[in-house]
Amino acid sequence: MSMTVKDIAENIDGVVDGDDNVEITSLASLQDAVGGDISFLANPRYSSAVKSSKASAVIVNNDWKGDFSGTIIKVQDADAAFSQVASLLIPPPAKPEAGMHPTAVVANGVKLGDAVSIGPNVVIESGVTIGAGTVIGAGCYIGQDTTIGSDGMIYPNVSIRERVTIGDRIIIQMGAIVGSDGFGYTQEGRKWVKIPQVGTVEIGDDVEIGANTTIDRARFGKTVIENGVKLDNHVQVAHNVHIGENAALVAFVALAGSCSIGANVQMAGHSGASGHVHVGDYSVLMPFSAPTKDVTEKTVVSGFPARPFMQHQKSQAALLKLPKLVKRVAALEKRLDDLKGE
Amino acid sequence: MSMTVKDIAENIDGVVDGDDNVEITSLASLQDAVGGDISFLANPRYSSAVKSSKASAVIVNNDWKGDFSGTIIKVQDADAAFSQVASLLIPPPAKPEAGMHPTAVVANGVKLGDAVSIGPNVVIESGVTIGAGTVIGAGCYIGQDTTIGSDGMIYPNVSIRERVTIGDRIIIQMGAIVGSDGFGYTQEGRKWVKIPQVGTVEIGDDVEIGANTTIDRARFGKTVIENGVKLDNHVQVAHNVHIGENAALVAFVALAGSCSIGANVQMAGHSGASGHVHVGDYSVLMPFSAPTKDVTEKTVVSGFPARPFMQHQKSQAALLKLPKLVKRVAALEKRLDDLKGE
Amino acid sequence: MSMTVKDIAENIDGVVDGDDNVEITSLASLQDAVGGDISFLANPRYSSAVKSSKASAVIVNNDWKGDFSGTIIKVQDADAAFSQVASLLIPPPAKPEAGMHPTAVVANGVKLGDAVSIGPNVVIESGVTIGAGTVIGAGCYIGQDTTIGSDGMIYPNVSIRERVTIGDRIIIQMGAIVGSDGFGYTQEGRKWVKIPQVGTVEIGDDVEIGANTTIDRARFGKTVIENGVKLDNHVQVAHNVHIGENAALVAFVALAGSCSIGANVQMAGHSGASGHVHVGDYSVLMPFSAPTKDVTEKTVVSGFPARPFMQHQKSQAALLKLPKLVKRVAALEKRLDDLKGE
Repeated sequence: MSMTVKDIAENIDGVVDGDDNVEITSLASLQDAVGGDISFLANPRYSSAVKSSKASAVIVNNDWKGDFSGTIIKVQDADAAFSQVASLLIPPPAKPEAGMHPTAVVANGVKLGDAVSIGPNVVIESGVTIGAGTVIGAGCYIGQDTTIGSDGMIYPNVSIRERVTIGDRIIIQMGAIVGSDGFGYTQEGRKWVKIPQVGTVEIGDDVEIGANTTIDRARFGKTVIENGVKLDNHVQVAHNVHIGENAALVAFVALAGSCSIGANVQMAGHSGASGHVHVGDYSVLMPFSAPTKDVTEKTVVSGFPARPFMQHQKSQAALLKLPKLVKRVAALEKRLDDLKGE
Repeated sequence: MSMTVKDIAENIDGVVDGDDNVEITSLASLQDAVGGDISFLANPRYSSAVKSSKASAVIVNNDWKGDFSGTIIKVQDADAAFSQVASLLIPPPAKPEAGMHPTAVVANGVKLGDAVSIGPNVVIESGVTIGAGTVIGAGCYIGQDTTIGSDGMIYPNVSIRERVTIGDRIIIQMGAIVGSDGFGYTQEGRKWVKIPQVGTVEIGDDVEIGANTTIDRARFGKTVIENGVKLDNHVQVAHNVHIGENAALVAFVALAGSCSIGANVQMAGHSGASGHVHVGDYSVLMPFSAPTKDVTEKTVVSGFPARPFMQHQKSQAALLKLPKLVKRVAALEKRLDDLKGE
Repeated sequence: MSMTVKDIAENIDGVVDGDDNVEITSLASLQDAVGGDISFLANPRYSSAVKSSKASAVIVNNDWKGDFSGTIIKVQDADAAFSQVASLLIPPPAKPEAGMHPTAVVANGVKLGDAVSIGPNVVIESGVTIGAGTVIGAGCYIGQDTTIGSDGMIYPNVSIRERVTIGDRIIIQMGAIVGSDGFGYTQEGRKWVKIPQVGTVEIGDDVEIGANTTIDRARFGKTVIENGVKLDNHVQVAHNVHIGENAALVAFVALAGSCSIGANVQMAGHSGASGHVHVGDYSVLMPFSAPTKDVTEKTVVSGFPARPFMQHQKSQAALLKLPKLVKRVAALEKRLDDLKGE
């Protein structure tokens, strides 16, 4: 694909400063760009990178000021505009054709909406319902009586077990697992006895589930993921967890059984929450943090057990001074001993 | 399904206090229950939730005392009884039919016990043996000369490589991996040279392996998982690891090469053990902890490098006081300076 | 297989001390070995284990001194020699036959080099190129226009999406994912809006990717993994990450978007790097560490946020003394109060 700066600017409501006849063939970051590339500046922190960039054109926010030898396109939101340009220059791969691949193994009576696409080697058990326009990638498994909404995109080799309910516009990346048994046992002497995991999983609309992420079914009742939740790769959602609307969980987040994550919560990499803990709406968990008690809303927490961010930061800053503090205390003791000796 | 409280009580050896004709149709936690649900109280900590619950019936332990407007069923172990009721009200999905799906690719000479079920698109290489009653879910791969015992349940899209030995009543959740190469290299200059991983994996009876968990084959000899071990989702078992009977490992546990985990050890989320370390029987590793030296038996450890729990707790508690302590030491120094000045 | 010590010694350029007619049938560690086994001592720390080993023969380094009742084989590098012996005694499984399994679903026009092996149920989309001698295991998915070099080994149930480029001699363990969407969103009010992930992944030669590891495609441009990189199981490589030559990343390493890892960096289990951070060549990240700022080359760092190793160690050592230090400061305050009172 190739477009002129002029065409691009029109598509993103931009104002051009410089030559608008330049041909753009690809996209790159300010650092990596070469001639023919378009780039963008979203974070003012990297503003100096514009001047040294070899991009032919750079999209910036309206209030940007600086030098650049190529062409500038000013817009209201450079980040969003760049995403639009990306879709223009590199069109997403063609959506797989509607219909069922001859190698798919689909039980009798499965209900498929209009224009559903079922890829090669897909296995769909009896009682399944799939909404209009949803794509089921190669090698996926969908268990008995599971329901998936419309306009979803389920990439290859995803496994979903029985009686799961999934809303509209779901995106599930490759290798993700939905509806596996929860990790529940009782002890008999030294042995673990499995507790039947007879519950299920309910997932809302506009949810995205990352590659190799796992979502366990409930012991009874439901593991619930509300509308708009975004899960990165390698997230673990245990049995009976509840995740509120628009929460965003990053790689290696571990949610223990029956914990409840509020709406718009953000959990950083390697964070977690203990069983039955509630994290309030809009709270943020820093990397490697995990609360063992409830977290109130709009709170940033750090460390394990998780503490309020500022408290944790002060302790950690003081910790760096601790080796010297030990010496200072020893010196004080000696001074006081000496004083007493006098 | 629907059952009366009377029928339920008979099934779990319970004593009814209240109306035993109530119809029960579903299960829920005390908080989530509505009319028609049965719930239970296992942890006395949540005792107050019984009174406010909208469940039609609640199973409690014999020694429970309190108010409830619905029907109470007293039993010896409310938790276990509730699991029984769950299985009565929500029967587990029908076991897949015995036999081989026509799309399965099974090598000549593979030995299958009675009533084995081989799902669609399963691939089984030559020399494999599978015991009576075991289910191999859709899309599973089983490598050359691997042996799996009887009455196992291997869910869809599980991958098991060559020469692995697995005992009876195994449960493997979707996406799990058994027998991948260990992460072993030697250095030649700046480059890594792969060490052949010619060993295998030996798994005992009554083991459960979570979704997307990985178990590497040994460099030579065996990676060993003893009877009764339970692995949650996303557990990493490296080459030549030994896990003792009934150990239970939670999500994101990382076992480095050749470490050895004692019987009945419990490892919490995001914990781990360094290479060649031994963790003694019945020891417990707290979240985010990892020992770099051997841990004696029946020891609870925290932090990295892991320390005895109480020592770690005392340090962490003191850490919260540290910012003030820094100020107190500065004040002491000033007081002493002033004293000297006098 | 069975070989005499004499034959083994010839294969590894070893000097025999003891009976060289002994038959060797298997390999084991010094601790686990029984009669008929050969073992080795690489780490002088375990030297005492030679004497008590029940192995029939032990390979040691030339400078080893000690007692052993069986046969000793002295070589320059016992570790490397033992790997050679492992391959002699336990030949790796036969490489799958060249050709395409009849159940594979391969698009028209796919370009396959000589002696490529395509396993059962593999799905290969249009425009794919695969180099000579590469093996694609059962159930793998390879997306449109992806290119894979020669002599690669891709184990079963691996998923690779469109437009990915992979070099020669790649090894990909089971369940790994390449080319999934990056985790990128902008916020509109309370909701997350997906940023199209139109970039791709470029992987060099001699790379190994562990089981269930995930590598996200770039938002635009490329996620890059240079020659000789080794990734363990459960590694997360986010969009636009760059990993330099011969870096080695262990289980549960999390690389956030656009971070850049230098050549020959080593990252331990559960470590990570924040977005846009650069880790210099030859640096080492200890377990549970993650830098939030750039790390200079040849630096060992610990903790979160990551600090130089020695600084971190001193703080942690002092932390163990902290509970007593709190008491010592209180005692000092009292002594000073008493002094003032006098």
